[in-house]
Amino acid sequence: MKRIKVSNNVIRRLPRYLRKLDELKAGGVSRISSFNLGQQLGLTPSQIRQDFSCFGEFGQQGYGYNVAALRDEIALILGMDRGFRAILIGVGNIGHALMDNFCFSDWGFTLAAAFDIDPEIVGKRNKGVAVRSMDELLDYLRENRVDVAVLTVPKEAASAVAKLLIDNGVGAIWNFTNVELTEPNSRTIVENVHFSDSLLSLSYFVAERLDEEAAQAARAERRAGM
Amino acid sequence: MKRIKVSNNVIRRLPRYLRKLDELKAGGVSRISSFNLGQQLGLTPSQIRQDFSCFGEFGQQGYGYNVAALRDEIALILGMDRGFRAILIGVGNIGHALMDNFCFSDWGFTLAAAFDIDPEIVGKRNKGVAVRSMDELLDYLRENRVDVAVLTVPKEAASAVAKLLIDNGVGAIWNFTNVELTEPNSRTIVENVHFSDSLLSLSYFVAERLDEEAAQAARAERRAGM
Repeated sequence: MKRIKVSNNVIRRLPRYLRKLDELKAGGVSRISSFNLGQQLGLTPSQIRQDFSCFGEFGQQGYGYNVAALRDEIALILGMDRGFRAILIGVGNIGHALMDNFCFSDWGFTLAAAFDIDPEIVGKRNKGVAVRSMDELLDYLRENRVDVAVLTVPKEAASAVAKLLIDNGVGAIWNFTNVELTEPNSRTIVENVHFSDSLLSLSYFVAERLDEEAAQAARAERRAGM
Repeated sequence: MKRIKVSNNVIRRLPRYLRKLDELKAGGVSRISSFNLGQQLGLTPSQIRQDFSCFGEFGQQGYGYNVAALRDEIALILGMDRGFRAILIGVGNIGHALMDNFCFSDWGFTLAAAFDIDPEIVGKRNKGVAVRSMDELLDYLRENRVDVAVLTVPKEAASAVAKLLIDNGVGAIWNFTNVELTEPNSRTIVENVHFSDSLLSLSYFVAERLDEEAAQAARAERRAGM
């Protein structure tokens, strides 16, 4: 695929487009205008057209987008057809939850292996994926291509494990540890999961509504006092 | 606080600003220009100025922003001073991980209670928070103000528990269940956590790099063949 440099904000919107299109498809919608799509996503039609124009011509002027075709295009752009191989490191609470409930394959990934230090967990299988000992990780990395390592180890172990992954050519780290992984000259891509970003947006919306309600109550009181 | 209607995209950037400013503050930076802040966040200076202008005048032309003051302003805008009360429902893997590792208080929240159906967990304390029986939830909701319910129950239970929360006036649901919670006429705000959005962005970056490397290799081959 030929790629132009696309802004980070556009890239971050692609998964949201994909989810919305999946939802529309499941709901039996086969065509949608940029206006309607925008309304459902809180974006302007022109922003949507501009986002998609980074990747070619998708819609037809006046006819809108074919939902299924656009969905498949976005899946390709996101690399969901590449068969990326993931491993998971640290089968604690978060690691366990991801193995149990997160459908890697829905997003084009194969979860190929998991690693932990706890002898009680090592050797067990979880949704078809065997948990291996951390002692085997280095050999595994040398023998297998790993596109993404899901890092769900405790904070204290994060930096050391990340260094091992980076030194052994892992393509990317999906970092759940809340530890900033800084390896300046590394080619490994790091994606941090920040739960707090989501909670703080929610906090904003709750605060906004409380303020609105307080303002309404104050107006009603003034009116009653007139 | 007087609020104007701010676009969803601006609101979603606020937590990122906060994190960056916390990082700068910890690194001893006391002042930063919109240009430098933009560079570190992958945003243009004008976008940053525009974002902040939604909330008043923060910077001083030519002097940049005071990092600590801007951080505190954004914290206020996000409602981090409101003392929001959260409860957590479903102490499975994800719920447990959040209770263990997520510092609610860092973001202005008090985690006041947790609920589960498993008698083996009920009655235990986790980081000072007691796990109560689901049987107590309804009474708890009637007797206590709950600003945010963290929903970490299994998929199958998601809709029924959400309905209970909504019917009993919970302000917002932080939804980790991957189940679309649709209660059209409810005033409860829902914030969905989509791990897949983060993984798919990562997928994009990995695919992009592979394409770049392939293009480079092809160019090198052509050059060698000349």
